[in-house]
Amino acid sequence: MNNWNLQPSCIWFTGLSGAGKSTVSTAVADRLRQGIASELELLDGDVVRTNLSKGLGFSRQDRDTNILRIGWVCQLLVKHHASVLTAAISPYRTTRSEVRAMVEATAGGGSFVEVFVNASVECCTARDVKGLYARAIRGEIKEFTGVSDPYQAPENPEIILDTEQETQQESVNKVLDYLKEYRA
Amino acid sequence: MNNWNLQPSCIWFTGLSGAGKSTVSTAVADRLRQGIASELELLDGDVVRTNLSKGLGFSRQDRDTNILRIGWVCQLLVKHHASVLTAAISPYRTTRSEVRAMVEATAGGGSFVEVFVNASVECCTARDVKGLYARAIRGEIKEFTGVSDPYQAPENPEIILDTEQETQQESVNKVLDYLKEYRA
Repeated sequence: MNNWNLQPSCIWFTGLSGAGKSTVSTAVADRLRQGIASELELLDGDVVRTNLSKGLGFSRQDRDTNILRIGWVCQLLVKHHASVLTAAISPYRTTRSEVRAMVEATAGGGSFVEVFVNASVECCTARDVKGLYARAIRGEIKEFTGVSDPYQAPENPEIILDTEQETQQESVNKVLDYLKEYRA
Repeated sequence: MNNWNLQPSCIWFTGLSGAGKSTVSTAVADRLRQGIASELELLDGDVVRTNLSKGLGFSRQDRDTNILRIGWVCQLLVKHHASVLTAAISPYRTTRSEVRAMVEATAGGGSFVEVFVNASVECCTARDVKGLYARAIRGEIKEFTGVSDPYQAPENPEIILDTEQETQQESVNKVLDYLKEYRA
């Protein structure tokens, strides 16, 4: 697992809150960093909301603005030969497609790898690590993806993780195996 | 003027609207690109307002959010070995200092080069390329830097351009001469 120099890529994790996006992407980043160190960036949804999107809410428009903003930063990094992992719910299919197009249009042609982190609403509600599903179901959080707001699953993602059935290690290995194709 | 590989740097142009930030930074970027091509990014204030900061206004808080957001993207790029030129009014001294601190704190230690693009309000009003000063003076634009909003000039910028007296070429050469120190 050495010599993990990736072609500049954007590895985009999408899925419900609690599906495991942050967990798996962080573990993948840790494994990749053993080989390629600083040329990898991990943009977690929460970090991005703080640094790029403070003030935005969860309406369709605000969600799209947030995702396109992350996408814009991703294409900048890919353009400058870095690879980026992102973990954001990114519920809308067309918005994810726009980001894909932005990344693929970068000088040199960046790769976009969509990773569908799949777990059912029932499963995520049962986990409810942050207690958000309970609050959403009680109506204390409006526009909560999977409860009161839609999630549009990817139709042709490069990778599908089934985090209801797989162990974390199995999910991580699926991503790493796929990325072998992208070694520089 | 070949072999312009810069150490990862953020070259931050600050000054009034119409002082010449975009003009000079674009010309500097063009000259640098003759040598280092894709490792250089130019983030113009208007481009950034579209891609990162749509919806933000011009209150102190919104301006600070905008500048810190640009700063955050700059430190990401510098961290990944790119150099960035930015052209944004960035009127507040403490906010520019925060950006400097972010960039200098990146892994590897990024350089921050503050370029004060100096021209008086009178001069910028006389030029008024975009017609904004006339509108601000008529009260049609609120919170306009230099007219109804403050501009805090840098106290110790790395470079001062006097765009009232210098030709564009002289200003560009001043920046390029300074950056010679930063060749990698």
